[in-house]
Amino acid sequence: MDFIEKLLKASRKNNTLLCIGLDPDPLLMPDVEVAEFNRQIIEATKDLVCAYKPNLAFYEVLGIDGLIALEKTLTFIPGDIPVIADAKRGDIGNTARKYAQALFEIYGFDAATVNPYLGHDSLEPFTDYLDRGIFILCNTSNAGAADFQQLRCRSDAAKDAVPLFELVAMKAAEWNVHRNIGLVVGATQPRSLRRVRQLCPDMSLLIPGIGAQGGELSSAVQYGVDANGEKAIINCSRQVLYASKGKDFPSAARLEAARLREQMNQQRMIATESTEKRVGCRG
Amino acid sequence: MDFIEKLLKASRKNNTLLCIGLDPDPLLMPDVEVAEFNRQIIEATKDLVCAYKPNLAFYEVLGIDGLIALEKTLTFIPGDIPVIADAKRGDIGNTARKYAQALFEIYGFDAATVNPYLGHDSLEPFTDYLDRGIFILCNTSNAGAADFQQLRCRSDAAKDAVPLFELVAMKAAEWNVHRNIGLVVGATQPRSLRRVRQLCPDMSLLIPGIGAQGGELSSAVQYGVDANGEKAIINCSRQVLYASKGKDFPSAARLEAARLREQMNQQRMIATESTEKRVGCRG
Repeated sequence: MDFIEKLLKASRKNNTLLCIGLDPDPLLMPDVEVAEFNRQIIEATKDLVCAYKPNLAFYEVLGIDGLIALEKTLTFIPGDIPVIADAKRGDIGNTARKYAQALFEIYGFDAATVNPYLGHDSLEPFTDYLDRGIFILCNTSNAGAADFQQLRCRSDAAKDAVPLFELVAMKAAEWNVHRNIGLVVGATQPRSLRRVRQLCPDMSLLIPGIGAQGGELSSAVQYGVDANGEKAIINCSRQVLYASKGKDFPSAARLEAARLREQMNQQRMIATESTEKRVGCRG
Repeated sequence: MDFIEKLLKASRKNNTLLCIGLDPDPLLMPDVEVAEFNRQIIEATKDLVCAYKPNLAFYEVLGIDGLIALEKTLTFIPGDIPVIADAKRGDIGNTARKYAQALFEIYGFDAATVNPYLGHDSLEPFTDYLDRGIFILCNTSNAGAADFQQLRCRSDAAKDAVPLFELVAMKAAEWNVHRNIGLVVGATQPRSLRRVRQLCPDMSLLIPGIGAQGGELSSAVQYGVDANGEKAIINCSRQVLYASKGKDFPSAARLEAARLREQMNQQRMIATESTEKRVGCRG
């Protein structure tokens, strides 16, 4: 089974667009070990999510112990829930191959986030794993996205100059021969999200930035989903993980995750209803 | 002492522009453990280099053992030789802070390579370490550099549309308030290297791509150095590390490193002589 199929299957089984970012931060966490914290979060939410997404920085900062905790964490995730390594890797061919091998073979992740700046040959070693996926950074959720991603560029791919992130989306579509490429598009700029969805109507979009970062859930879902109300993976981290700092953190996380799933599902009803109406008008 | 000062000091003490990329690849290495391989390479070359540069992918691909080998390797490097983490990290503020902490505090690297795609706020957590440095990917040595880095973009920083990598160089100069930013510019495109040196006359340039990747040593040095014939860090990995696959690998690596240092020094003599002549003409 390929990655996109696995993702869709999990999303349908749990009727959800919610992805939980497993980003354990000892400063915010209750008093419990990292792997055990993750185990309890996973146990409490595994029927509410379409994917988990550990960001490697949160483990690397804990040194070797952190990476052992990451390895352990992966064993707690049910086999039918895909796990995305939020690693944002990007290196030249020979070295990119090592990163891909580390993430897909050593850790066993289903997918990884990658940075497009080094171009196609830096991504191929990842997409060559036909049963795994990548999400290419396209338009990120931070203020710094304006520095380069939103500059207007000229390329053969478009007649007029378009923002760099749109070119990244177009190139990603062109490179998606194995159907295992998705894009990372932040929820903080709804118009850009809508634009990427127009450019890539069938692609899976990983959407961070709602909650703490200020993105709206409603536009993230409505502009993020495809025509079937699917293929948007809406990530939440802090909001779920740190719903309580007490011993009740798993049940608090579950409540928050369930609430988010429900809100997302309401929004996708609205999104697909309006699509159906539009399709109906045409017919 | 800040990073750039440490780098210059090592470069002057050993009279060298050579940086050795500590990228141990079990497929190419003699039959010895990774940390021991690195120890012998370091022992054999430490008076010939201005820096060492381990690429993290080569350690991550070996799992936890690889990272233990990396930690060990760092203890073998003399305290006055700066060590650059070739990590090419890039993430949003909160997470970038964790990466910076991992590289600078947990491992204790003097500098790290970083990816500019996420903009200024993704780099600040690194540059906030005033005694450490970053090298921002600018124009990389691979073919994929053409996909985005060389597209002509419009920005407030330049009147006319210029290639994206030039904007990255201009922005890096603007952001360099703590004097701890350098750039990564591949040796495979000498004209681009010359252009970056024109844009950033005082910045340290980390230059990969000579040897196996096809870049010429002569243009790397001549276009890479500043007006004093300094601040170019020319990286070699495979050529030095795998000069021999036999037991004589340390002495073979030393010979090759010494040869490269000598060639580079000849080229920088030519470069500084021509600068002096130019300066002479003006006066």
